[in-house]
Amino acid sequence: MAKEHSFGELLGEPVAGNGLLHRRFFLQSGAAIAGAAAATGAARAESIGTTSPPSMIKPGSGFTAYGMPSHWRDDIKRILVANAPPGREVTGSSRTPLQLLEGAITPAGLHYVRIHNGVPDIDPNRHQLVIYGMVKQPLVFTVDSLMRYPMESHIRFMECAGNSGGMNAPAPPQATAGDIHGLLSGSEWTGVKLSTLLDEAGLDPRATWILAEGADAAGMSRSVPVWKAMDDAMIALYQNGEPIRPEQGFPMRLLLPGFEGNTNVKWVRRLKAMDTPMYTRDETSRYTELMPDGKAREFMLQMEPKSVILKPSFGINMQGPGFYEISGLAWSGLGAVRRVDISADGGKSWTQAALTGPVLPKALTRFRLPWMWNGGPAVLMSRTTDEKNVVQKTHAEWVAQYAPRQNFHFSAIQSWTVAADGKVSNIYV
Amino acid sequence: MAKEHSFGELLGEPVAGNGLLHRRFFLQSGAAIAGAAAATGAARAESIGTTSPPSMIKPGSGFTAYGMPSHWRDDIKRILVANAPPGREVTGSSRTPLQLLEGAITPAGLHYVRIHNGVPDIDPNRHQLVIYGMVKQPLVFTVDSLMRYPMESHIRFMECAGNSGGMNAPAPPQATAGDIHGLLSGSEWTGVKLSTLLDEAGLDPRATWILAEGADAAGMSRSVPVWKAMDDAMIALYQNGEPIRPEQGFPMRLLLPGFEGNTNVKWVRRLKAMDTPMYTRDETSRYTELMPDGKAREFMLQMEPKSVILKPSFGINMQGPGFYEISGLAWSGLGAVRRVDISADGGKSWTQAALTGPVLPKALTRFRLPWMWNGGPAVLMSRTTDEKNVVQKTHAEWVAQYAPRQNFHFSAIQSWTVAADGKVSNIYV
Repeated sequence: MAKEHSFGELLGEPVAGNGLLHRRFFLQSGAAIAGAAAATGAARAESIGTTSPPSMIKPGSGFTAYGMPSHWRDDIKRILVANAPPGREVTGSSRTPLQLLEGAITPAGLHYVRIHNGVPDIDPNRHQLVIYGMVKQPLVFTVDSLMRYPMESHIRFMECAGNSGGMNAPAPPQATAGDIHGLLSGSEWTGVKLSTLLDEAGLDPRATWILAEGADAAGMSRSVPVWKAMDDAMIALYQNGEPIRPEQGFPMRLLLPGFEGNTNVKWVRRLKAMDTPMYTRDETSRYTELMPDGKAREFMLQMEPKSVILKPSFGINMQGPGFYEISGLAWSGLGAVRRVDISADGGKSWTQAALTGPVLPKALTRFRLPWMWNGGPAVLMSRTTDEKNVVQKTHAEWVAQYAPRQNFHFSAIQSWTVAADGKVSNIYV
Repeated sequence: MAKEHSFGELLGEPVAGNGLLHRRFFLQSGAAIAGAAAATGAARAESIGTTSPPSMIKPGSGFTAYGMPSHWRDDIKRILVANAPPGREVTGSSRTPLQLLEGAITPAGLHYVRIHNGVPDIDPNRHQLVIYGMVKQPLVFTVDSLMRYPMESHIRFMECAGNSGGMNAPAPPQATAGDIHGLLSGSEWTGVKLSTLLDEAGLDPRATWILAEGADAAGMSRSVPVWKAMDDAMIALYQNGEPIRPEQGFPMRLLLPGFEGNTNVKWVRRLKAMDTPMYTRDETSRYTELMPDGKAREFMLQMEPKSVILKPSFGINMQGPGFYEISGLAWSGLGAVRRVDISADGGKSWTQAALTGPVLPKALTRFRLPWMWNGGPAVLMSRTTDEKNVVQKTHAEWVAQYAPRQNFHFSAIQSWTVAADGKVSNIYV
């Protein structure tokens, strides 16, 4: 029943090695390019209609107050990276199963979670946020009082500074994109600009840092440069339209678009204006980069341009030669993604992917490229260039910057090999 | 402890009656405009920090595979509009509690649901979509085969043609914005362009309509013009990043951006190309407009420009005179929202609201405007103009177009009165 296509005639010449097609091909052609459908006769087509599936025989289920995903896809869940059994850990992380998702918004239920002493259960009617230190007038805010302020909404990514850390191991981890890179999610955040609140408190012009502290049992605290606090920082109250969930900071979190996740302090309760950073635990023992000369680089807060191909990727194997869409995510903490280039031959040749708009600053950006896989071995790579013209490095270039096994802020190119049987593996190029 | 502001000095003159301020005010001023915070002494500010809240005393809870909202906000749920007890109905609707949400994305769990014979439980491995009728080659697609095709992602609104129907009652319904207008939600949808599939099947140039049929026990079916099917129609597989949920059409639905919700057939199983519409039940007995001359207008498929103020709105009352942000949603099935004008004096004077970007076609668009409420009576109205320069009508103008009590495609201006005690009520203007 499978229909055959003469792909050579339909598709024209590839634009880069190993069968990569031009990103605009779909816009130029009404041809039947994918050919994954089964052709069928007209009589058979009618009969598919007259043979009612089970779902049409009896009434379905009723209403729910809050909908949930289909039980048929209960494989789509956060990936817990910890040793203790699920539900028993209070420190560690769970990751977004990137390779099973699409688009650029992460459902809040699948947003990655990094906790240091559990998820606090905070009564929003009692929670207070205090701004103090080097200000004219200390101020105390509640959820209700913040609701009176002007708000903003922005789609932004969030990424842990430890994301992709496994990619600095001597051998490439054979694991899914979510396992490796899933400390990454994208959301629409809504809240009050932090600059509005700092203006009201009367920030001392000599203040250069803000210490942000969370109301969790880890007392998570980080120093934030004043320039960032006065730029696009937000006290976020909503995520993807609804109040922020407990695992994401209910009732409020600090949002620092493009900064490493850890600085986006959840359950935020205090902001202290200072003229020096505090050098808290999470900015000394962690999240600094050990350099080859033995010194540590501190306060590398902006996440660099990065990308990962998700289809195909480890565990998302090829189903025989033919047409595929290569698809993945790109992002940069420095601004908007300008372009994503794709190679199918391990970096020998490249072509530009299509970006799904709107391409927003500091937001996950979906890229797509048509690919005619001939069934031979291939090495797929994606490389982001952002609006500051910063280009994603190769694995070798990235590793060479640091002391051995430094594993924060990994942002190198992810390469996947495709074997003749369609199996996809992780490889360092 | 409450801090006092001299608002007159800080804010300058209102730009429209009853205290509406210019939409760009926040960009021009670093002044403390909201003044909803409580001022506090430096010593007290320090003490708020040293007195640890309960959430800091003992570890919080552990990881979950799929996160959920806070139990403190279990008031935020879909509004069931039916007579039978929750969980027992298989026909009716549940609505999005718009007035409790923010931004422009609706979490999938709160997306409105309209079902006609329950939510089917469909095995995605057995589901088939057949394209037949006036095509060269009938085709059968599965979820797996569709995954091979090029995909697109778009943020779009969905609105039931019966949304806001209660606004045609003789007296304005005293109910929340969600109760009245909540058959409206916004999502990021990802799937395969329908034109790609119709091209592959070889659509007969004489075909003018596509009959779309669902696999639910109502056999929901609607006729769709070919021009729309070949324009921006999509077979959607993902909503807000994850596979579409059962209540939204799992494993696939037809997406017709800007068209009345009912035509976006969920659980879609057949698409038949024809040279006439089918005149199914839901395009004859429903979703037609009875005109004053007794004739019914059929196939009014595009949703017209519309808006609703959510803060304040019924149930979201004012908390005393002072600064507020007016905020709400605007949308148009004809394209992008061009502007939203706000009146606080029942339509005597208007000023333009700020639109939260990116302003996308056929997507919910959040608007915001600063307002200094002096504590006197006010009537708040919002009016959308879309990119086709179609302007939202007044209630009186809208009602006059139709026979009495025609209640589909209501799109008139929503007006809210604010009483001196801050209570917000629905009113026809």
